[in-house]
Amino acid sequence: MAYHLPLLGLVPEGFMSQAPFLSVSRRTRSTPFTRRVEDNGVSAYTVYNHMLLPTVFESVVADYHHLKKHVQIWDVACERQVEVRGPDAAELLQLVTPRSLTKMQDDQCYYIPMVNEYGGMLNDPVAVRLSEDRFWVSLADSDMKYWLSGLAIGKGLNVDVFEPDVSPLGVQGPKSDDLMADLVGDDIRSLGFFRHRQYNIGGKDYLIARSGWSKQGGFEIYLDGSENGEKVWDILFEAGEKYNVRAGCPNGIERIEGGLLSHGNDMTEENTPLECGLGKYCHTSAMKICIGGDKLRAEKKNGPKQIIRGLTLDGDHVPGCTAPWPLRNETGQKVGQITGAAWSPDFNKNIAIGMVDKNHWDFGTSLTAEAPDGQRSAIVGPIPFETV
Amino acid sequence: MAYHLPLLGLVPEGFMSQAPFLSVSRRTRSTPFTRRVEDNGVSAYTVYNHMLLPTVFESVVADYHHLKKHVQIWDVACERQVEVRGPDAAELLQLVTPRSLTKMQDDQCYYIPMVNEYGGMLNDPVAVRLSEDRFWVSLADSDMKYWLSGLAIGKGLNVDVFEPDVSPLGVQGPKSDDLMADLVGDDIRSLGFFRHRQYNIGGKDYLIARSGWSKQGGFEIYLDGSENGEKVWDILFEAGEKYNVRAGCPNGIERIEGGLLSHGNDMTEENTPLECGLGKYCHTSAMKICIGGDKLRAEKKNGPKQIIRGLTLDGDHVPGCTAPWPLRNETGQKVGQITGAAWSPDFNKNIAIGMVDKNHWDFGTSLTAEAPDGQRSAIVGPIPFETV
Repeated sequence: MAYHLPLLGLVPEGFMSQAPFLSVSRRTRSTPFTRRVEDNGVSAYTVYNHMLLPTVFESVVADYHHLKKHVQIWDVACERQVEVRGPDAAELLQLVTPRSLTKMQDDQCYYIPMVNEYGGMLNDPVAVRLSEDRFWVSLADSDMKYWLSGLAIGKGLNVDVFEPDVSPLGVQGPKSDDLMADLVGDDIRSLGFFRHRQYNIGGKDYLIARSGWSKQGGFEIYLDGSENGEKVWDILFEAGEKYNVRAGCPNGIERIEGGLLSHGNDMTEENTPLECGLGKYCHTSAMKICIGGDKLRAEKKNGPKQIIRGLTLDGDHVPGCTAPWPLRNETGQKVGQITGAAWSPDFNKNIAIGMVDKNHWDFGTSLTAEAPDGQRSAIVGPIPFETV
Repeated sequence: MAYHLPLLGLVPEGFMSQAPFLSVSRRTRSTPFTRRVEDNGVSAYTVYNHMLLPTVFESVVADYHHLKKHVQIWDVACERQVEVRGPDAAELLQLVTPRSLTKMQDDQCYYIPMVNEYGGMLNDPVAVRLSEDRFWVSLADSDMKYWLSGLAIGKGLNVDVFEPDVSPLGVQGPKSDDLMADLVGDDIRSLGFFRHRQYNIGGKDYLIARSGWSKQGGFEIYLDGSENGEKVWDILFEAGEKYNVRAGCPNGIERIEGGLLSHGNDMTEENTPLECGLGKYCHTSAMKICIGGDKLRAEKKNGPKQIIRGLTLDGDHVPGCTAPWPLRNETGQKVGQITGAAWSPDFNKNIAIGMVDKNHWDFGTSLTAEAPDGQRSAIVGPIPFETV
């Protein structure tokens, strides 16, 4: 009954040569924007934090070209917020991240790896500081609220941990500044990267940050109050008409070009921040406080055993990567794995993200990738990929 | 680009008149059985515990009729296990459930509501006791491992909490006993409900429990070791050939008939076990230990403010329920909501599950349901639904 979708650029994996349908229920939560997303012709979703995340509109390639030229509105409500509020809010957060939060300002966003007792990646959210004792944590795909709540209760911390009614809406693409400046004034052009301010849209102030899961520039509007979702969406589309605005979503090609990591794809709880190339977010002072920090300090001293790398693959357009592809050296030994791959139209080659073992991670190393459609030569390189 | 699927019995919701495609990635984990599921013509999935869960093979109705007459093999690997092991294992579990675990035997499975500090439902897993200090917790769709780990670390408990390589495979339907007796011997016919024993399949012993998310009878095989998934699947299909075995999955009609609750659909963290009709699993002794137990004791004294009910709806076949449908009384006041609905071929009517407020929950009460395709008369009744 399934339906072949080469044009959409969805799967196939090795054994999954046809794209399946998604059964939608209350459990795969709709968002304040889902109705508009449907109106704009969404083709496919994934499920992220128990919520619908659009993945394709026209096609992955068409969406990619549009994102890199114009401006898109993204329903990323699935970046669910955890509000951490109370006298011990900062203390609780510092217990789960090796990144020092002591210098964080009230208008700042921090990308913070969150780790378990072994230093493994539980999540890699963006934390938004609202005040000294109040944070929003904008999550990747795991129920980090459960970890934070359990830990706070176990430790008897004076803090509330809950999911507020806040849903991010992305404005992404090179024309994002123009669109937003038309809408809220030129002041927003001076908003620094990972800084946030309040701006008025349709008579209500919203927190807007210069952030987002693309390298094309843009903003995230933290919609505070689901009932205003469609109104804000419509206002953005009206303001964006002259900029060729479209509904869009995180793009599987662009994110690999830009080296944007995906928790659950490129790394799991089995991997440390150091393996993920996030050593700069592992601070000595914070690792002394953070649970699992002792493991990270030891690892930082000796260096990780594997690390995230970019790879280029030869041959025809690669299929989607729905399970890790082994990377082997010339003797056939497994020395890593690829966890995301795509044909890049702009780079005119196959690009991938993977984890490569220490003795094989030098730029230029030749390996063999076991893609589901056959073996391919793979060359290790940096991420993000160099500009063409 | 989407594709209308009335024949499959998938959505539509009000605004979602076409079934979307699912983008599959490493993050939406495949299972040890996914290849076989694909070989058997799966049409649709949902994502459950970050893993693929089949939802439709031939069609929801065809799957339903087959399930109630024959026997099906279900890939329910997405019921991910959390292993809780160590001297404080039982203590940790008792901290999160109001059900007393003191009399639990080593061959027993317990359905245990798990609650937060307010008595809200975090998950409703089946706990499998392996020994005094070792449990598997077979999860509904939330990262309960995070809550358990956070709590154990916060409290300094002597316990390991981790996801073992264990994937349940369901054998469901009236011919389950015959199939399994042919395969592992007649001893399995005497296995009690929610009891487990070790049985040999293909040269390896597996824990098998009489359990599963249907009311048609059957077993769950706890596949311990992903590498054996396809082998066990193939052995079951060979043994089941004379019983007309097919690949199947939890069925949206049968589960409503049987009153099987779905966490995330029928209840969320906003609901207590008492509201879910699970008062019999709220024990006085355990509520004194369990975090949030004080809230449940107070609620048990006065009774909950709303409760899960079955409802019958008039009119033509109902669409799928992808967001709650309000239930209103004759003055238009909201007095509940429907969270699951289906046309039942065997009952020859529309049946639903919902939460109804105290003054309107008596059997026979007439309400109005706001389905996405219009208003319908709704009659409150018990769940499971009475046999036709």
